[in-house]
Amino acid sequence: MAEPAGASRDRIDEVVVTPVAFADPPLLNAAGVHQPYALRSIVQVRTVSGLTGLGETYGDAAHLGLLRRAAPALRGLDLFDTNGMAVRLAAELRGAEAPDAHGLTGASSPSKSLARVVSPFEVAMLDLAGQRTDRPVHALLGGRVRDAIPFAAYLFYKWDRHPGGGPDGWGAALDPDGIVAQARAMVDRYGFRSLKLKGGVFEPDAEIAAVRALRAALPELPVRLDPNAAWTLATSHRVARELAGDLQYLEDPTPGRYGMAAVAARAPMPLATNMCVVAFDHLPEAVRLGSAQVILADHHYWGGLRASIRLAAMCDVFGIGLSMHSNSHLGISLAAMVHLAAAAPALSYPCDTHAPWAVDDVVANPLPIVDGSVAVPDAPGLGVTLDEAALARLHRQYLDCGITRRDDAGYLRTVQPEFRKRVAAW
Amino acid sequence: MAEPAGASRDRIDEVVVTPVAFADPPLLNAAGVHQPYALRSIVQVRTVSGLTGLGETYGDAAHLGLLRRAAPALRGLDLFDTNGMAVRLAAELRGAEAPDAHGLTGASSPSKSLARVVSPFEVAMLDLAGQRTDRPVHALLGGRVRDAIPFAAYLFYKWDRHPGGGPDGWGAALDPDGIVAQARAMVDRYGFRSLKLKGGVFEPDAEIAAVRALRAALPELPVRLDPNAAWTLATSHRVARELAGDLQYLEDPTPGRYGMAAVAARAPMPLATNMCVVAFDHLPEAVRLGSAQVILADHHYWGGLRASIRLAAMCDVFGIGLSMHSNSHLGISLAAMVHLAAAAPALSYPCDTHAPWAVDDVVANPLPIVDGSVAVPDAPGLGVTLDEAALARLHRQYLDCGITRRDDAGYLRTVQPEFRKRVAAW
Ligand SMILES: [Mg+2]
Ligand SMILES: [Mg+2]
Repeated sequence: MAEPAGASRDRIDEVVVTPVAFADPPLLNAAGVHQPYALRSIVQVRTVSGLTGLGETYGDAAHLGLLRRAAPALRGLDLFDTNGMAVRLAAELRGAEAPDAHGLTGASSPSKSLARVVSPFEVAMLDLAGQRTDRPVHALLGGRVRDAIPFAAYLFYKWDRHPGGGPDGWGAALDPDGIVAQARAMVDRYGFRSLKLKGGVFEPDAEIAAVRALRAALPELPVRLDPNAAWTLATSHRVARELAGDLQYLEDPTPGRYGMAAVAARAPMPLATNMCVVAFDHLPEAVRLGSAQVILADHHYWGGLRASIRLAAMCDVFGIGLSMHSNSHLGISLAAMVHLAAAAPALSYPCDTHAPWAVDDVVANPLPIVDGSVAVPDAPGLGVTLDEAALARLHRQYLDCGITRRDDAGYLRTVQPEFRKRVAAW
Repeated sequence: MAEPAGASRDRIDEVVVTPVAFADPPLLNAAGVHQPYALRSIVQVRTVSGLTGLGETYGDAAHLGLLRRAAPALRGLDLFDTNGMAVRLAAELRGAEAPDAHGLTGASSPSKSLARVVSPFEVAMLDLAGQRTDRPVHALLGGRVRDAIPFAAYLFYKWDRHPGGGPDGWGAALDPDGIVAQARAMVDRYGFRSLKLKGGVFEPDAEIAAVRALRAALPELPVRLDPNAAWTLATSHRVARELAGDLQYLEDPTPGRYGMAAVAARAPMPLATNMCVVAFDHLPEAVRLGSAQVILADHHYWGGLRASIRLAAMCDVFGIGLSMHSNSHLGISLAAMVHLAAAAPALSYPCDTHAPWAVDDVVANPLPIVDGSVAVPDAPGLGVTLDEAALARLHRQYLDCGITRRDDAGYLRTVQPEFRKRVAAW
């Protein structure tokens, strides 16, 4: 605290954006199947004084292009000035869009793309501000209101290996027995106390059977099911009715805020979404219609940690529950999610995470999941340190793997040529 | 930044709450008339290392009692831990209430009282965090998005002196000519570029005439009128129609969220409120009904600066404009208002302030209003310094003046024994 406000040594000097690829199992979903490598962009924001703040976001080529276009605009900003950063990036990117390659959050728009670009830089700046003040990021968001963040075991139908590859160690899961075995392995290894099944892969009765098998095998653990809008209204009504008492919530059974509201009006369990409410613009209609009783926040597309805190407050005010969405990610994102969850009083459900599916990482000290939870770190900043060698290795992997955008459907078509993304398909 | 996280020198060691009274002119309103002294409580939060953070809030005896009950609970907290402070105060005050002595924000409740008690301590802790990091408070809220905060000239019907007192220098304002003269004096002295008239004092046609006189005399300046819910629905409809084109917004014409919505449905100008939406709980109904198109935020009762930033975000999302409410206040509150306004992108109207009516202050360096605006300070913390001698003097004045709660109605009854607060009275 010796420097005057905005001291030159606290100004941002250099921003580096590095795409990486890490091995990802063949996880099935309504859009296809995960490719052999998942892509992320790692953001490093450096100050004149030599501090480095970390951020992590999507690695698809179009998004990477926007990140690289935005990065130079940070130069000269005070490390605390996240609002100033957002203003600069809005000016820099005005009108630019990058599609959501996975397509779960609907059509792209300039404001949605801006929120996605702002997010990793905001996280990196909060990491810097935390290091600068010797405080964890959660302290800069107001302070933690819980000591540990519970996560759900994120269960997927999957093959035992990628075509042409070796077994990934998790085994196949293509029926209720396979899902139950996967759940037991996840629970044994990480101590998860709730379960989430990614559905939309098999016909609804098969997924109902899988949920019932999970309930029978692990009756203490609440279960959620997420078919990613693969069902019609009629199917959604039926499945909701049949799974009464068996689901903590039903996630995105059908597309759209009107469709979700229609299902919600008759469903015996809350509906959750990370598809029909993915931007602040969607909230007024969702509130008016009652489209979702739980919103799955995700700081990667809601515009960062502070914006997600504001979303959490809105959910609280409007009586909407709050959980957290996850895409395939590495240890920087996990740390950011944990700090956010620590400082958001309204977070009312265990969060999603793909962490167990990623064997690689760019951080030297990933936050461990123990007893189904991540202890909230109190080290300065995010509390994770970049492993430079791992970053170089995963960047090399990015260059070598040839994947430049997520394409679950295209990849599944290499095996099932007739495959089409399932949208209200059953 | 030499200390480890939560270093003992950054812990809160002592909290001092000092009630003060400062001379206030006889400003008329629907509830009566301002007493000769306005009350405030000045909060000082000290760390082990000797830093002092400042907060300011209401000075009514019941509120003061809650502040004093809450103060010891802060001891030992890290100066950044505002969430932890709110959790502790909720535990400490559970169920306690202090009425809003002026009565404009409706019946008291434990949650409303808690928000009012949390607020000055949060401001003081942000002042500390700013000093600790050599950053202005706005930087801790994300950074300023504007360089100066515009305020409106806050015009009041008034006597030229308190009964038995000497003239206060502003003269009487009891008709359109008096209001125009007051507006000209305010604009000459402070450069205000918009005007707000406190109404609910004379029958509606007299106040319509005052607004028209302001429009004729100062046609460049937008005007607002605030009768503090003194009108019936029918009167509100009529006045709104008659002042079409003359008001930037009409503030609280009639009581309640239903009444306001009924007026709003036909009014040609936006309706604003600091009476029917004064807590987060009120937002869902207000949004559903369309009770107000502008909310006047006030960090003193919305729960502090961060809570007000969240309110601002909600207004932005739900298409509600944002301005800022003021009670009689001193320089700590003005500084807090300015930092909040600086970091709230959605703030869409000049703010209210009673600052010109207060000749005294507890700060040595009050932020000046120039060209109708306050330049956003970039000094560490709030950027204002306590004048210890002034604090002692205004505390002595509090002890001597014998006023322990605001009572505009009782005071007016000493002159007009038949007076009753005007609620939907015209
Ligand atoms: Mg989902
Ligand atoms: Mg008002």
